Order: sequence, then C-alpha cells, then structure tokens
Amino acid sequence: MKIDNSPARGTRDLLPDAVAARDHVVGLIQDVYRRFGYRRIETPALERIERLTGGQGGENEKLIFQILRRGLGSELPAGTDPSELVDLGLRFDLTVPLARYYSQYRSELPQPFRSFQFGPVWRAERPQKGRYRQFHQCDIDLIGEQSVLAEVELIEATTQALAAVGLSGTTVRLSDRRLLAALASACGVPDDAQPGFFITLDKLDKIGWDGVMEELRDQRGVATEVVERVRSAIDSLIEAPAGKVVDVLADVVPTTPEHVSRDLATTISCLEQLPAQTVRWTFDPTMVRGMGYYTGQIFEISHPAAAGSIAGGGRYDELIGRFLGTDVPACGFSIGFERIVELIAAPARDDHVAVLYDADVVPVEHALGVARRLRGDGRTASVIRRSGKLPAQLDRLGSTHVTSFIHVQTEHDVHELPPERELRGDTE
Amino acid sequence: MKIDNSPARGTRDLLPDAVAARDHVVGLIQDVYRRFGYRRIETPALERIERLTGGQGGENEKLIFQILRRGLGSELPAGTDPSELVDLGLRFDLTVPLARYYSQYRSELPQPFRSFQFGPVWRAERPQKGRYRQFHQCDIDLIGEQSVLAEVELIEATTQALAAVGLSGTTVRLSDRRLLAALASACGVPDDAQPGFFITLDKLDKIGWDGVMEELRDQRGVATEVVERVRSAIDSLIEAPAGKVVDVLADVVPTTPEHVSRDLATTISCLEQLPAQTVRWTFDPTMVRGMGYYTGQIFEISHPAAAGSIAGGGRYDELIGRFLGTDVPACGFSIGFERIVELIAAPARDDHVAVLYDADVVPVEHALGVARRLRGDGRTASVIRRSGKLPAQLDRLGSTHVTSFIHVQTEHDVHELPPERELRGDTE
Repeated sequence: MKIDNSPARGTRDLLPDAVAARDHVVGLIQDVYRRFGYRRIETPALERIERLTGGQGGENEKLIFQILRRGLGSELPAGTDPSELVDLGLRFDLTVPLARYYSQYRSELPQPFRSFQFGPVWRAERPQKGRYRQFHQCDIDLIGEQSVLAEVELIEATTQALAAVGLSGTTVRLSDRRLLAALASACGVPDDAQPGFFITLDKLDKIGWDGVMEELRDQRGVATEVVERVRSAIDSLIEAPAGKVVDVLADVVPTTPEHVSRDLATTISCLEQLPAQTVRWTFDPTMVRGMGYYTGQIFEISHPAAAGSIAGGGRYDELIGRFLGTDVPACGFSIGFERIVELIAAPARDDHVAVLYDADVVPVEHALGVARRLRGDGRTASVIRRSGKLPAQLDRLGSTHVTSFIHVQTEHDVHELPPERELRGDTE
Repeated sequence: MKIDNSPARGTRDLLPDAVAARDHVVGLIQDVYRRFGYRRIETPALERIERLTGGQGGENEKLIFQILRRGLGSELPAGTDPSELVDLGLRFDLTVPLARYYSQYRSELPQPFRSFQFGPVWRAERPQKGRYRQFHQCDIDLIGEQSVLAEVELIEATTQALAAVGLSGTTVRLSDRRLLAALASACGVPDDAQPGFFITLDKLDKIGWDGVMEELRDQRGVATEVVERVRSAIDSLIEAPAGKVVDVLADVVPTTPEHVSRDLATTISCLEQLPAQTVRWTFDPTMVRGMGYYTGQIFEISHPAAAGSIAGGGRYDELIGRFLGTDVPACGFSIGFERIVELIAAPARDDHVAVLYDADVVPVEHALGVARRLRGDGRTASVIRRSGKLPAQLDRLGSTHVTSFIHVQTEHDVHELPPERELRGDTE
C-alpha cells in the first residue's frame, strides 16, 4: 500500500522547527509595530468573488482560487461557463480585504487607523522554487492620514521591525509616482503613453537601458530623443548628492508640483534622522512598483543578504474610495515575510527535559508527577516510556527538541530524582 | 454610491479588540502546551479533494468548500458533473491533515510525536448564530504512544490550559468506546446493530431515555428488554461512587476486556492526582462522541459557564493507518476555541501614548522624535496630527486604544515635553 501523502501541489507543510522560526520572526515584528500603535486585525480567507475581481488586484486577479457554489446538482446544462459556478474566492492579498474592512467599520475605528495584518494569501501560480500557492503576507497600513507623516512613520516602523529580526543595514529606496509622471511629461512622453512607459521602465534592472529604449521605441511608440531626455534626467537625479536631491529635481524637472517636492524634502529629512548603522536611503527614480493603485510616494527596502527587495509599499489614496464611495488617504508597507524568514537564524532551542520511565516498575502516575514538579519550576517536561535499548532511544530523542533527560527506573527515583543529564553530551 | 462591504456570508471580520482577546487566549494555551513538550505544526488550508473525501470526516465531508480546477475554458460539455471540475478543497478539520502530515514526515519526527495545531478550518454550514463557516480549531495530539500515558497527559495538559485562561473548575467526562461495545454486547445488542445503537445513545441528553428506547425499538430493531438491560447497566455505572467505578464495571459488564478495565483504573487514578479545585471528573458511559474514528477512551470537558462541552477528544488508533498503510496509536484533544474565547474577559489595555502635534508650527521630524523617545523607554506611542477642535479629537481617540496623550504645540515643547495627560480622565 503506497499512498502519496505530500501536500497539495505548490503548498507546504511546516515542521516544528520551521513554525518556531516563523513565530519568532513574526513575534519580533509585531512587537515593534505594536509600539508604533498598530493593532492586528483579521479578515476571512474567503471573499465574494466580485470583490476580488474589481481590477484592483491587477495580474493577481487571474490567479484566484475560485470556490464552487454549493448545491449545484450532478449535471450542468450544456455550454455552462465555469465562472457562473463560482461565488467565492480565496484572497490574493491583504490590501483589497483591508479596503473593504475599513469601508465597513470606519465609524468604529480610530481616526487615523493603524492596522497590522499577518496571514495567508493564495495565488494559483505555476509552482516554482521559492514561490508557493499559499504564503503569508505581513502588512502595516495607516489609513486616514493625508500628510507625509504616514510615509515616514511606516518607513521608520518597518526598518525598525527588520532591525529587530536581525536585518540591520537596510537601504530604503524612495520615489514618487507623481514625480515620475511629471518627469515623463517634462521629457515629452505623451499622457496616454505613460502607463506603458512606466511598465517598461520598471524592467530597467532586468533589461538595462538598451532594452528599455528599444521597448519604448518599438512597442510604446516613444521617440528615441524623448527616451534620451528621460535617461539623462534620471541619471542627474541618481547622481545628485544625498543633500541635493530636491535642488536637482527643481532643476531637472521644473514642472514638479510644489507639494510633491515638499513631501520629498520632508521624507528625506526624516530618513536622515534614522540611525545610519541600521538604515541608509537612496532616491531611485527608476523604481516604479507594479501595483496600479499607488498615487504618491513609493518605497522598497533592500538588504545585502537578499537579492531584490525585502519590503515595499507606498501611498494609495484612491483604493478605499472604490469600496467606500469616498476617497480616504492611505499608505501601506508590506514585508516580504517568506523571503526574510529564510535569511534569519533559527531561534535558540528551549530547555526541554524528557522524563524517561520504566513502565514495568514505575507507575505512570509517578512519572507524570515528576514532570509536573519540573513544570512547576518553569521547565518544559515531557514524559516518555523507556523502550528498546537506551542509547538508541536517546539517539531518537536527540533528533528532537529535547535537551536533557532524567531516567526514572525505580519507585525510589520518584522521591529522590536521579541526576538530570545533558542529552547532547550523551549522544554527540 | 451604496456598496455592501460586509464579509462573505457566514464569515467574520475581527476588530482589533477581538484579535487581541483571541491572541491572548491562544498565547496562554500555547504556553501550557509548550511546557508539556508540544510543538506547533502547520498544514496548508488546501488539500487534494480525494484526501478530504475518504470517509474519515463523516458528515463534515458534505460541507467541504470545493475549489474549481484552473484553465477550464469558458464552455463546459453537456451533462458535466460539477464534482469533476474540482481538484482541491479547504480542510474541514485539523485531524485529517495531521494524519496525512504524520504519514509523510514520520521519519523526521520525534517518537512519540507531540503536536499542537491552531488554525482556521472551513465548513459550508447553514450560517446561524455562533456558528461560522470559517472558525479556528485548537488541537493537541500525541502520536506513537500506545499506553494510556497519552490519555492522561492530554487530559492534564488541556485542563491546565483551560485553567490558565481562567476556566478552572472544569469537569472531565470519561468513557471508553471498547467498554461501550462490551456493555452493548453483554446486554444483547447484536454486533451489526451496534453502530446505530451508539448513534441513538449519543442523543440521550437531547431526547431522554424514553426517546432513546423508542428510537432503538422502532428504528434500530433493538428489543425493549435489551434496552432495559442497557439502561440498568448504565445507571449502575453512573451511580457508582468515584472510587468504585472499576469494581462496579466488573460486576455489571463482566465481559469487559481486562486491559480496558486496567486503562480505566489508571486514568481514574491519574485524574485523582489533579488538584480538585481546578479539575473534577466523572465517568459517563452515555457519552459517545460523534466521530467514527475513535477506538478507545473518549473524553469531554465541561465548565459551569458554558452549555455543552468546551473540549473533547479521544484515542484514534486506526486513522493514521488509512494514510500510512500501517496503524500508529494516536490520541488527541481539541479545545472549542471559538466557544471559550467568548467566556473569557478581554485582556487589559496596553499603555499607549498619543503624541498630538500642531503640524503648522511643529515639523513632523520633531513629533516623530518625541514618539521615538517614548518608545525608547519601552512605551507604545503613535503620532497624530492635531485637527479640528481638541475635545472632539480627544473624544475620537477615547474610542480607541489610546490611554494618554502629550500635546506638542510649539518647537519648544519638543525639548521640554509638555505633561502627559490621562485620556480617560479628560473625556469621561
């Protein structure tokens, strides 16, 4: 009898050590966010399908796991469209449910509202290394704050959370969707070509400037001299000394709206206040970020130990309006939880005593009493019946979380505990 | 524009206070289980549909949320059976996935294996008060221990966990499936009528002895004199003094296998060791427990504050064999998390200072600096821009988790912090 007991394709089971590492990481992150006033909320895994397919999710909407309606009978009429059979879907992110949630409970929530979310999301992606169909997201959002206070607080809280789990030395990359639009207009990119322009620019780190210029010219119909002006403006901004970014911006993109420059100056000033050993920053006008809902500053965080970014976010002032009917300013930051958990050392083992007892001569009541006494002293203790050869049984325990053991061999041992012995010392 | 932003039918959103209460409860439970050597594992929400429909789940298998296969095109052939369109389902409990998990990773897991699980499960039940389509289960299981050590440890750990969350004074009800079968046989219930006999007996607390006798006679074909004998045997067992249960059993059901009596005596002896102010126990031969997979002792826990039981479990030595091909002894206990969380007082509020600042005169950098200083002292601090009339804004904060505030009105206030004021004192 050979049965396949692996988890469903693209999903994972987590062994105890993996769960302990994840709990450790999320505990540290949540402690930091809690000190910033963020409180955890939860939404259900299931959402009505029409909520998930409103266009806010971009490409992710094609990856929804869809739930069959109940009570469909056993034969469908000819030509049935499978989409008619669906009423629910599994959420593909935590931002769309948050927008619905805020719209529903707004009057009961603090203004502004600081939300922390940690939970699974599902995407029917083609399974590949490091990419799963169920994975956890870890988001903070500040809703109802229109000023750049939101951006700078989210950046500080998230870099602090990353430092708390051992990821100091992060670099924050900063840009602004409004500035990108002003830059593109100033360089002569027509308004209707801008969405495509940004999609191509977003590929810069993959295909380089030559690839970007070729794609803009051949597929987006943007003239070469326009692209040259864009590149030159971006180069000037990238090369600007840290203290001069806003001055160079005024020079290179004089049409930048005044409040955009002011916000940028404030964010930079706040970033400068953060301790340089934990956080550096850079202004990066080539960063676009995929999600269509961003409306202002956008940011990503990178770390020397990880390729790509380990966190990202930005302002999305128009998303909640699609649920509420009235726009509400909002800004969010998401830590790439599955990515960072792989970078972090496992937490230290707990102290854990195994109470081994010879069941032939020691009643189980007594073995339980020994363990109870140890737990009363704040220890972790499990009771295990002696079986087979002792070295072999200790070897098996050695592969577990047990750190020491007591061997109760006679009734007498219950009253005068035999010495506790290090498990590692005996087996390694 | 009026949009329905409620969660999907039968599911819930959780506000920050509700999440805090749940986290508090599960944290206390997990701390106790950890001290007993139980470690948390996770399985994915999605399982292959054929794993969920193998008969282990009883009635729950009719309530599975089923996932549509991807890439079905837009028109189905005539007469398609909807069940052919499904490849995955959402888990309806944590025990069936645990059996699969143990079978898959057995060689990497400690022997015996102590597992703790806390996570959502889904059932497409008709929504009604207090019953949800997504709810959390909280299970411990001890796999690989054939002796009654498993039963007594699970009972001790679970009653301790309940005491830790404030539910002392619980009563453990104890029975044994093997004893029930021996009792039924001894009284003359034919072997093939026993499954139906147990289903009817399980309704005793709802329909009473008259209802049970009528159903057994009319629907199960059990003769009235047989039912009278059963009732008389059960009455004798229920009336037996605590110290005499096993003696009475030998008298009333002399065919009880010797190891079943011995196990019962051991469990009772261990229950007697537990402090009577936190745990009482009773032997209850009328308890059946619905799940078909139980093979030995079964138990439930009740508390004066709750109708019905707040936890239940038992031995299921044959379930893992359906996944692994070899039987492995196993025993589990599940706390009714959604039920107990409603019985427990909310955790105390954290201390949380709001740093209110007048954005016209105080730069955001300075307000952030004030909050950073407070957090450095281990406080929780959030930064909030002053807006509108102060009393009204304080009123709005009063409905949140904020407990005190500092009002930063001038640049000078940044260096010499103005006094911190109790929020509640100002608004109530």
